[in-house]
Amino acid sequence: MQKKTTMLIKNIGQLVTMQGSVPRRGRFMNEIGLITNGAVAVAGDEILAVGKSDDIVGRVELAENCDVISAENHVVTPGFIDPHTHPVFVGTREAEFEMRLAGKSYMEIAQAGGGIRSTVRQVREATGEELYATSRKTVAALLAHGVTSIEAKSGYGLSTEAELKSLEVIRRLNELEPVDLYPTFLGAHEVPDEYRDHHKEYVELVINEMIPAVAAKKLALFCDVFCEDGVFTVEESRAILTAARKAGMQLKLHADELKSTGGAELAAEMGAISADHLMFISDKGIEMLAASQTAAVLLPGTSFALGLDKTAPARTMIEKGVIVALATDCNPGSSMTESLAMIITLAALKLKMTAAEALSAVTVNAACAIGQGERLGRLESGLPADIAIWDMRDYRELPYHYGVNLVETVIKNGKVVVTR
Amino acid sequence: MQKKTTMLIKNIGQLVTMQGSVPRRGRFMNEIGLITNGAVAVAGDEILAVGKSDDIVGRVELAENCDVISAENHVVTPGFIDPHTHPVFVGTREAEFEMRLAGKSYMEIAQAGGGIRSTVRQVREATGEELYATSRKTVAALLAHGVTSIEAKSGYGLSTEAELKSLEVIRRLNELEPVDLYPTFLGAHEVPDEYRDHHKEYVELVINEMIPAVAAKKLALFCDVFCEDGVFTVEESRAILTAARKAGMQLKLHADELKSTGGAELAAEMGAISADHLMFISDKGIEMLAASQTAAVLLPGTSFALGLDKTAPARTMIEKGVIVALATDCNPGSSMTESLAMIITLAALKLKMTAAEALSAVTVNAACAIGQGERLGRLESGLPADIAIWDMRDYRELPYHYGVNLVETVIKNGKVVVTR
Repeated sequence: MQKKTTMLIKNIGQLVTMQGSVPRRGRFMNEIGLITNGAVAVAGDEILAVGKSDDIVGRVELAENCDVISAENHVVTPGFIDPHTHPVFVGTREAEFEMRLAGKSYMEIAQAGGGIRSTVRQVREATGEELYATSRKTVAALLAHGVTSIEAKSGYGLSTEAELKSLEVIRRLNELEPVDLYPTFLGAHEVPDEYRDHHKEYVELVINEMIPAVAAKKLALFCDVFCEDGVFTVEESRAILTAARKAGMQLKLHADELKSTGGAELAAEMGAISADHLMFISDKGIEMLAASQTAAVLLPGTSFALGLDKTAPARTMIEKGVIVALATDCNPGSSMTESLAMIITLAALKLKMTAAEALSAVTVNAACAIGQGERLGRLESGLPADIAIWDMRDYRELPYHYGVNLVETVIKNGKVVVTR
Repeated sequence: MQKKTTMLIKNIGQLVTMQGSVPRRGRFMNEIGLITNGAVAVAGDEILAVGKSDDIVGRVELAENCDVISAENHVVTPGFIDPHTHPVFVGTREAEFEMRLAGKSYMEIAQAGGGIRSTVRQVREATGEELYATSRKTVAALLAHGVTSIEAKSGYGLSTEAELKSLEVIRRLNELEPVDLYPTFLGAHEVPDEYRDHHKEYVELVINEMIPAVAAKKLALFCDVFCEDGVFTVEESRAILTAARKAGMQLKLHADELKSTGGAELAAEMGAISADHLMFISDKGIEMLAASQTAAVLLPGTSFALGLDKTAPARTMIEKGVIVALATDCNPGSSMTESLAMIITLAALKLKMTAAEALSAVTVNAACAIGQGERLGRLESGLPADIAIWDMRDYRELPYHYGVNLVETVIKNGKVVVTR
């Protein structure tokens, strides 16, 4: 017996299903499965049917109290997926933003109390309750901008206690907020001050104490490392990721952000689920990603907000067949934004991605980057009913109409969770 | 007898009065009149008192039903002023945005039905009612982003009838919407197709028919011209502006946007109220603006959205003492945004303006650019109660926290008109 429809979105100006991207998981990035005058029928927390409005309306059976939304002149997409965020922090760093633009050096900023160390200090001092309150605001803002699934990293604790505290905040957000969080342990985000002259010992702490503690409490799906000259070398990254894999986590990597260090190659070699940043990815790195299932998560907001001109070679990656995703990199140091639409604008302007490619990059491909390529990022019968309704007539308005939030309604697991 | 307070905003984390900028109308651009733990008392549509919260709360007399807002951890600023917008249009141009980024030429875009001609065609065909409905949405979005006064241009009609229709839409918006619009006649925005081979006759039409018709109906405070190679020359611009001045309008000029053509010099020479764009302003142009009361209205969103690297020399202008303002340039062709906060982020990143300078540029200096330097853009006893309350602890979050709308409440003439 057919399930009854509990929510019907009909008369949709443009329904973007992303179904065209399925066969090779988003690699046909211009195929967005566009249906004009479309409809989506939802049963409970799942999508029941997707198609032309006339067809769907004619054949579904409405439950009592079915929520019917008429979406003429609107665009409907899968709920967006943000596959790279650092939402667990206390304190904003606007003074540092201004100092950087005035030409102050990293050292001058650090001496004035800025930089990642200032966030680490505040996160260590904060109670779990305080951390929850501020992180909740960031997560709510992401949701208000159309994001229904968020990868969320720790990494401002840099001690076993503060990393666990951060991951517990993510777990609680996942339980209490109407959005799914996919937690990543990023103890190897930076070497904390107390280990400045004992770099190797910090790596051992991450491997021997933090990873087992995180795994024991099942607090993280993923383990990430900031692999960069002066932070963690390729060899250290490999050691940490190997330990994490043994502990049951999937792998991610901050790779080739400031220099070409072989990060992308390492990610592909180890079968990481994603390699992120990649501004300085090598040709070999691109080839290896293209031949792998490792997604490239590009973060053009970070270059933008740091005032840098360098961008990741998105066009080459797309042409070579890399699974390209986009993320906000939402964090208080280098990219203070909760808007993936803003990132789509930057992807168009700076990475020369089309609107269709950018949509793939925040739906199907972003799903691959959090290990959910089979379930999320598409509007298809049987998949979770995570849906965004946009106040626009054409999906190409997403990059074009910039700096504003055009989300009208967000639906998570079949329930309206944001409306305006 | 002292007036009674009808609205009291107290315990304001940071109250930005912009009073420091008064003596030379915004030229001391880093003086924003910051009061920590401040308060604003409003009586009817005017500001009654501004100061430390303890002082103000102790000495004002509250009217019955006084609206009391407690703004701990919030920033309060004057309502923003957007001194350059083109809000009267029908139809968005997202296809053209994508074509441009793919490297298509102006001609290819025009042949595909894009460019200003497509907007002119649609505006001519639209009824006043249709134009009003779409323009109203743009104006409401500007207001939702903290703007309480908007300069609004015609210029997509390019016939006497369609220009009057556009200006009548602006008049009606001004009457019916809770925001003030300052109308500008921009018949000389482009030469319409039917005059393509009769350029001179179009200039004559603007001077002899359009300006008198606009003046007779008192539909515009300002007259603007797009002074650029291939559009209107300096001499044509001078002729049009001279006619407009005789008809009682103040002057504005789209100047030096694509090339250095002497536009800034013309604006200063004619005592225009503003010269806008100015990416290619000459050294002499800067000197002349600095010696004048003509404001420079910079539009970094336009360069951004067109994918251009060239920016106006804002730092030099500020250092030389030019009155520098910022605007969205909101229009469907080159800058589809209603967010001045987005423009502030771009001003920081691209023009190297500080947050304080950018705040001056959207308040006191923007007021000068619409001829309201004595009345608007400051929070001061006796001035209109146009106020924005922001969900941020430090005004420097405005450029830093990018791509999102942090407005919490907008007050126009003493009344809450936006809240979330």
